[in-house]
Amino acid sequence: MQDYSWIHTCESSKSDSSGVSNSGESSKESSRCSTPVQDADRTDRLRDKMKRRIESGDHWFSLEFFPPRTASGAVNLISRFDRMGSGGPLFIDVTWHPAGDPGSDKETSSMMIASTAVNYCGLESVLHLTCCNQTKEKITAHLNKAKRLGLKNIMALRGDPIGEDWVEEDGGFNYATDLVKHIRCECDDYFDICVAGYPTGHPEAESYDEDLRHLKEKVDAGAHFIVTQLFFRAETFLKFVKDCRAIGITCPILPGIFPIQGYHSLRQLVKLSKLEVPEEIMQVIEPIKDNDAAIRSYGIQQAVEMCKVLLASGEVPGLHFYTLNREVATIEVLRQLGLWAEDPRRPLPWAVSAHPKRKVEDVRPIFWASRPKSYIYRTQDWDDFPNGRWGNSSSPAFGELTDYYLFYLKSKSPKEALLQMWGEELMNEESVYEVFTNYITGQTNPSGHKVMCLPWNDDPLAPETNLLKDELEKVNCRGVLTINSQPNINGKPSSDPIVGWGPAGGYVFQKAYLEFFTSSENVTALLQVLKKYEPRVNYHIVNVQGKNITNAHEMQPNAVTWGIFPGREIIQPTVVDPVSFMYWKDEAFALWIEQWAKLYEDESPSRMIIQYIHDNYFLINLVDNDFPLDSCLWQVIEDMFTLLDSPPETQEEGSQS
Amino acid sequence: MQDYSWIHTCESSKSDSSGVSNSGESSKESSRCSTPVQDADRTDRLRDKMKRRIESGDHWFSLEFFPPRTASGAVNLISRFDRMGSGGPLFIDVTWHPAGDPGSDKETSSMMIASTAVNYCGLESVLHLTCCNQTKEKITAHLNKAKRLGLKNIMALRGDPIGEDWVEEDGGFNYATDLVKHIRCECDDYFDICVAGYPTGHPEAESYDEDLRHLKEKVDAGAHFIVTQLFFRAETFLKFVKDCRAIGITCPILPGIFPIQGYHSLRQLVKLSKLEVPEEIMQVIEPIKDNDAAIRSYGIQQAVEMCKVLLASGEVPGLHFYTLNREVATIEVLRQLGLWAEDPRRPLPWAVSAHPKRKVEDVRPIFWASRPKSYIYRTQDWDDFPNGRWGNSSSPAFGELTDYYLFYLKSKSPKEALLQMWGEELMNEESVYEVFTNYITGQTNPSGHKVMCLPWNDDPLAPETNLLKDELEKVNCRGVLTINSQPNINGKPSSDPIVGWGPAGGYVFQKAYLEFFTSSENVTALLQVLKKYEPRVNYHIVNVQGKNITNAHEMQPNAVTWGIFPGREIIQPTVVDPVSFMYWKDEAFALWIEQWAKLYEDESPSRMIIQYIHDNYFLINLVDNDFPLDSCLWQVIEDMFTLLDSPPETQEEGSQS
Repeated sequence: MQDYSWIHTCESSKSDSSGVSNSGESSKESSRCSTPVQDADRTDRLRDKMKRRIESGDHWFSLEFFPPRTASGAVNLISRFDRMGSGGPLFIDVTWHPAGDPGSDKETSSMMIASTAVNYCGLESVLHLTCCNQTKEKITAHLNKAKRLGLKNIMALRGDPIGEDWVEEDGGFNYATDLVKHIRCECDDYFDICVAGYPTGHPEAESYDEDLRHLKEKVDAGAHFIVTQLFFRAETFLKFVKDCRAIGITCPILPGIFPIQGYHSLRQLVKLSKLEVPEEIMQVIEPIKDNDAAIRSYGIQQAVEMCKVLLASGEVPGLHFYTLNREVATIEVLRQLGLWAEDPRRPLPWAVSAHPKRKVEDVRPIFWASRPKSYIYRTQDWDDFPNGRWGNSSSPAFGELTDYYLFYLKSKSPKEALLQMWGEELMNEESVYEVFTNYITGQTNPSGHKVMCLPWNDDPLAPETNLLKDELEKVNCRGVLTINSQPNINGKPSSDPIVGWGPAGGYVFQKAYLEFFTSSENVTALLQVLKKYEPRVNYHIVNVQGKNITNAHEMQPNAVTWGIFPGREIIQPTVVDPVSFMYWKDEAFALWIEQWAKLYEDESPSRMIIQYIHDNYFLINLVDNDFPLDSCLWQVIEDMFTLLDSPPETQEEGSQS
Repeated sequence: MQDYSWIHTCESSKSDSSGVSNSGESSKESSRCSTPVQDADRTDRLRDKMKRRIESGDHWFSLEFFPPRTASGAVNLISRFDRMGSGGPLFIDVTWHPAGDPGSDKETSSMMIASTAVNYCGLESVLHLTCCNQTKEKITAHLNKAKRLGLKNIMALRGDPIGEDWVEEDGGFNYATDLVKHIRCECDDYFDICVAGYPTGHPEAESYDEDLRHLKEKVDAGAHFIVTQLFFRAETFLKFVKDCRAIGITCPILPGIFPIQGYHSLRQLVKLSKLEVPEEIMQVIEPIKDNDAAIRSYGIQQAVEMCKVLLASGEVPGLHFYTLNREVATIEVLRQLGLWAEDPRRPLPWAVSAHPKRKVEDVRPIFWASRPKSYIYRTQDWDDFPNGRWGNSSSPAFGELTDYYLFYLKSKSPKEALLQMWGEELMNEESVYEVFTNYITGQTNPSGHKVMCLPWNDDPLAPETNLLKDELEKVNCRGVLTINSQPNINGKPSSDPIVGWGPAGGYVFQKAYLEFFTSSENVTALLQVLKKYEPRVNYHIVNVQGKNITNAHEMQPNAVTWGIFPGREIIQPTVVDPVSFMYWKDEAFALWIEQWAKLYEDESPSRMIIQYIHDNYFLINLVDNDFPLDSCLWQVIEDMFTLLDSPPETQEEGSQS
């Protein structure tokens, strides 16, 4: 499943690039609360990040991707963004395909993929843009749309002329320089601009020197950094940098690294880019051309060697990788170079969106903890982040549950896999309890499959939740169907590998949290039991019809995650909020039907079982406010079961106490 | 020093009243941070507080005061507000003296005293207002001014006609009813309005029934509650309430309680108010008329007995006390009734201002901890409390240090007392160290006087600071002149009698804090030492010229007090803020000169010693960010002394390490 669509153009995709900042880099220096955050967009530009990294001698890497062809390809690429983003790229970039409706709202367009990277994956992203055969109006429209979507960086390219009879247009976009000028003219200094450099000269340029002069023009027109076409020898790049510096180009120049991943892809690339593969490489590769594993292994080794020379030269602040949308080779090269962040510092307990408007956001409801993209999607039109705060939840603006938004919600697993995990046929409610229990324990189900996800949890149990595994197992198999939980934490170091987040030298805290579905019979007993836990435990109990029982203050969010750091205000990034819970409730109940019930035939018993749960169960969240003590939430559930197991007279008695 | 000026009018002062809410009552339900606080003014009105207390069967009390005659009387009254406010009155009220320029900006005017009670003492306050012989324009101006100053409640009175030839004016203010109507007409529902009731009928009324009808008119015109003229028998009041209810008066009716405090004051009061003292009381008092203590003791006993009957009747939600600006008798009555709050809950670590605009304020710099009135005064024009937050400290609006503002800063002790405490003659800087040390230890100085206050601390050491007494003593006697400090706290219950604050069931935290003056030689060593404590300790070191050395983030406040409560967001009410520290610095250095140096003759050695310290010492604050560990700040000071005591070579070495 290789996709070379990006190789079709000489300049627009293959040879140019730019990049990604991950949460490690964009680690917010701001705290929430009393100090309003400065315009985050403008004080944390890609050029500034590069400057800081260059000054501190801290090498970075960036990753280039191309837009996928299909919606399911897009879902996969977004997962890849998450995984590769966790390694700490300074930026990613997404190529532009003039023929593929790149500026549209399609799930697969360059614009939407870059927007997803920024908004949902929290990656600093560079959008490619080509200008050849485009009107100024069209380009301006693209720029405005990019701005609106939160994109802050453009890779300005000429792109290949369409058709063979292309001639320069007077006043049109004939070169990337024209595009750079247009961007600066239309958008002033808003975008950080990247341009392409050719270590061996652009194939269409009259000469290497002529091409260098073109590059100088692009930079002089307002570009902030250069990413180069790929090359195979370190000295090629180092000479190029020297020549650039000699004619007065002073901005960062990032080498484009292409780890060879296969014989055919290399051949095709070389043909399209008009590059020559050095003899010493061809000599190694030709003999093993049918052994993909051997070639990939060689490609990794070759890239690592070259990168080491580049980094050692002192001329290279960061490396830019042509990933071909694959991850193994690039990650391996980065690991061997020591640039892959194995444990990137988390600035907040959840992934921060890189949208300029949302960078200042520093509190979220806990409910979407396992569904962060859904949360961002549903609040995308939410203008109400006053000073980055949660805002007045009495007027929330959670988007409606629409079909379109399910793109961001849809399970990554195909229907067959889901049926294997969740059961081809359900016998009764207990069958559902078993699915939940197997998900918690990681054991295989009777048909021999592990339950790797649930409609509310795309991924296996989080390491933090794993701490609660035994207790979770016990309650799930009795019909307390947990979908979200966190242990209490009374001041662990912010560097803790499992629960830590935020700047060094701090302490993080949590209140124990438990969220689950359970039957209305259980709820009756639970409400009895909860009387004994006032005011220690706050609860919200709702059903799909909107019945809502709570002992929480109507409008008060309950902070359940917070951190104390040296020289800062308190940060309290996760809350249980009564109002947003009612919106989450709609989503949580909808997932029973959309993701689970619909796997089965209409009117089938399996479907009716899920429908019954959807219609009759309650969704409950519990917070134990006494974070310094051992969580009492397990005892609450235990007490509920005890009450249910006791003879009816005792229950009556209980209700009078 | 008795002041009966208020007795001069029949209606305007003596017989009417209204009241005070203290911080216990106004305990803010809001937390800071993400949820914007609702319009605090309008959701927490006096009438609503009364309603809640009536519903919960929670009896309250209120206190009436009259404006003092002199500025020093005002300073004393403000201290009394603080002391009596701590007992938990629902409100206080301040009488109106038409002849005494009551609406002016004088320190002694009714308007300014009521404003001080609200703004600086955090007391819910009712301002009296009389309308007789006043123009509508004048009354409207008073109302607008009261509104501007943060007053929310008016006691609407007719007042006594000036001169003997008074006749009703057409369209003028002839009765309190006219004033009530005018307030409702001009200010809509803004003010809560109180009117006066006469249990034995107004002396000028044609009849008791006629007077009841007048009262009904006042209530119908828009009054929210009634406070009565004083009386001597419970049954007088209870009959009055019954009669009021019978004609349809449904609002709260508060009995005016007058604990008899002396024979002559009682006689004069009776004469002016045209009340008759019951025979059984006169029989007790006449024989002991020259024994003030005996009469006061009887007065207390008589008031307690009567109040018990009133409260037991179920008709009396709260008691209103005519204090005569004295505290002993009233407090004793309240103590015996069990209404005096011995340990009022603190909603925040500092006293909350009752100004509607400032009620939402929930964070302050720690620097003014011992000078809260000065802080409020200096930030009174500060509009920048967005959502009750500290706001962007980069544009603070701390008022200038002006002479006028020193009214709120001036020491309560006379010059002679200060000289006795701080030394008639200073020999050298060490004499100053001794003053500080004696203040800490509470020991008498060589001339036999205890140091009860310092220019930076009006009161003896706070109980919390007392926890640090031994360490403070050690460093002060060596010239580390501490003016503010707090111990670290790692999660004590919010109910802790010394360090607790906020709602029940919570936990409070603090970072250790130390603020002191010390010589520039010490600062040189301190800076050496502090290198070892990076980044654990944050410091700011400034001198009077504005030299400013810090390792703190330029714009980041450091939260040093915070609390975690059930079902709420985190509250972080005290911060160390780099910008406000520069303003505090001006005040802190000014106090050396204004309060201390000026006690001595110009050019005198004593004055020159203080001037020298003012000119050459630094003001330093230290925060230990590692709140779960034992404070390292004492070790920092210890290390500084060790370095100073070591031979010069070692110091050199130290500077290279």
